[in-house]
Amino acid sequence: MIVNSQPIGVFDSGAGGLTVLKHLIRTMPSEHFIYLGDTARLPYGNKSASTVQKYSLECSLFLLEHSVKLIVVACNTASALALPYLAQRLSIPVVGVIEPAAEFVARKFSHGNVGVIGTRATVESNVYGKTIRLLSNNRLNVFSVACPLFVPMIEEGFASHPIAEIAAGEYLEQLSRVKLNALVLGCTHYPVLKNVLAGILPNIVQVDCGECVAEYLVEHHADMLSPKNPDFSGTIRTYVTDYSPWFDRLALLFIGKEVAPAEVVRVHSQCADTDRLGL
Amino acid sequence: MIVNSQPIGVFDSGAGGLTVLKHLIRTMPSEHFIYLGDTARLPYGNKSASTVQKYSLECSLFLLEHSVKLIVVACNTASALALPYLAQRLSIPVVGVIEPAAEFVARKFSHGNVGVIGTRATVESNVYGKTIRLLSNNRLNVFSVACPLFVPMIEEGFASHPIAEIAAGEYLEQLSRVKLNALVLGCTHYPVLKNVLAGILPNIVQVDCGECVAEYLVEHHADMLSPKNPDFSGTIRTYVTDYSPWFDRLALLFIGKEVAPAEVVRVHSQCADTDRLGL
Repeated sequence: MIVNSQPIGVFDSGAGGLTVLKHLIRTMPSEHFIYLGDTARLPYGNKSASTVQKYSLECSLFLLEHSVKLIVVACNTASALALPYLAQRLSIPVVGVIEPAAEFVARKFSHGNVGVIGTRATVESNVYGKTIRLLSNNRLNVFSVACPLFVPMIEEGFASHPIAEIAAGEYLEQLSRVKLNALVLGCTHYPVLKNVLAGILPNIVQVDCGECVAEYLVEHHADMLSPKNPDFSGTIRTYVTDYSPWFDRLALLFIGKEVAPAEVVRVHSQCADTDRLGL
Repeated sequence: MIVNSQPIGVFDSGAGGLTVLKHLIRTMPSEHFIYLGDTARLPYGNKSASTVQKYSLECSLFLLEHSVKLIVVACNTASALALPYLAQRLSIPVVGVIEPAAEFVARKFSHGNVGVIGTRATVESNVYGKTIRLLSNNRLNVFSVACPLFVPMIEEGFASHPIAEIAAGEYLEQLSRVKLNALVLGCTHYPVLKNVLAGILPNIVQVDCGECVAEYLVEHHADMLSPKNPDFSGTIRTYVTDYSPWFDRLALLFIGKEVAPAEVVRVHSQCADTDRLGL
């Protein structure tokens, strides 16, 4: 039986999902959260579907061991490649970031063009395209572009450097010729590039998946959430699969408040199980 | 007992080590080679020492199962962080790329300054600095700079793009103020940037680790090598830990001749062993 006071589990390939966690905390401040960053195996964006599925299941099994009531897949790549796979294997709800973002644009725009930027794996999966067209009854056209250099560029401190403008100019060149209504930032890191992207694609609604998934939970999973209580703040626990000295600094930066240092855990100890199951 | 006709094992975090394999094949054309690219967990350059050690051991155990007589650690990060760890645990010789490159510069220059560029993990380990100073009896000064954006930039096709020049200009700014005799390309990918680097640091000997390790094997492990036979070409087998459609294309490009498609294998099935051993 699921009890409302159980924590919500969130996982990502690394620290990027903390931008999603930030919105979850803001929208649901009385919830407890457990965040897992798979820093030993990041990034997911250039790996195959079967590998991303295996890693995502191992992250989910770790969160399940911590009695989470619901799992948010903060990573766009894992949401694109592993969501049905996880949903078939887990007994609790698993919510990705793609459907919430797609629902947001389908409601906001009755027709028009939507751009999607993401990792190579996310874009090649075309899950954003299919989901946006489905939820908009084909009223919206979708134009997707992979921007694989963005994540390392941001992680290595070039987000406000001329390199970011040149790379963004190159990647978005084709999109800039389409009259877009919205641009979905289909990777947890991309909100950091909002200003750079606005310089190339001005006056376009930028869709932040973290905001969308927080609203989505309130709307679609209200029955599982803790009652709102302005006097009670939930706890936040963070875990990583590799010792990553930069993680706690990013956690403070992204979440905007102090959290206990991340604990290093093994999730591929689950691999004995996933191997035995032939996963 | 080790028989000369056994293959030489080579591993790397991904495809970069193929630039090392190319030099090994050129120098020792009658040898059989088994190459493993750990594409399911790449890159190694931003991970912790203990994680890189664990992954390196799992790669080595896989190669051992294929009866290799000697292992070349083509990855600079793994060479920097895991070499003594592997040497203590394996009964066959394990050769990294750092000592061969350090030996090359220590012999070539009686005194002066050596620049080293590499991943964050390689540079933070300072193994290049220590080894070059040791082998040169402190006659050579070493200046190391981490260039973490280079690998994704090269892998994403920006090696000949203005972005490469800007990033290289930024990273090498401090080195360009030192009168360098040599620049060690301390990452398997960097030889691709030779021209860009020469534009910023002209008239400096660029040291390619692949060339150095091939010469090193001939000099230090001649007793283990197959007799030279101009009529016999060894076989090359390649393996990857994740399905990576780009790998075979890079293999052809880097090695310069057709090799059989890479086979996907699991090496973290070894993790049951490494976990049990508390590794």
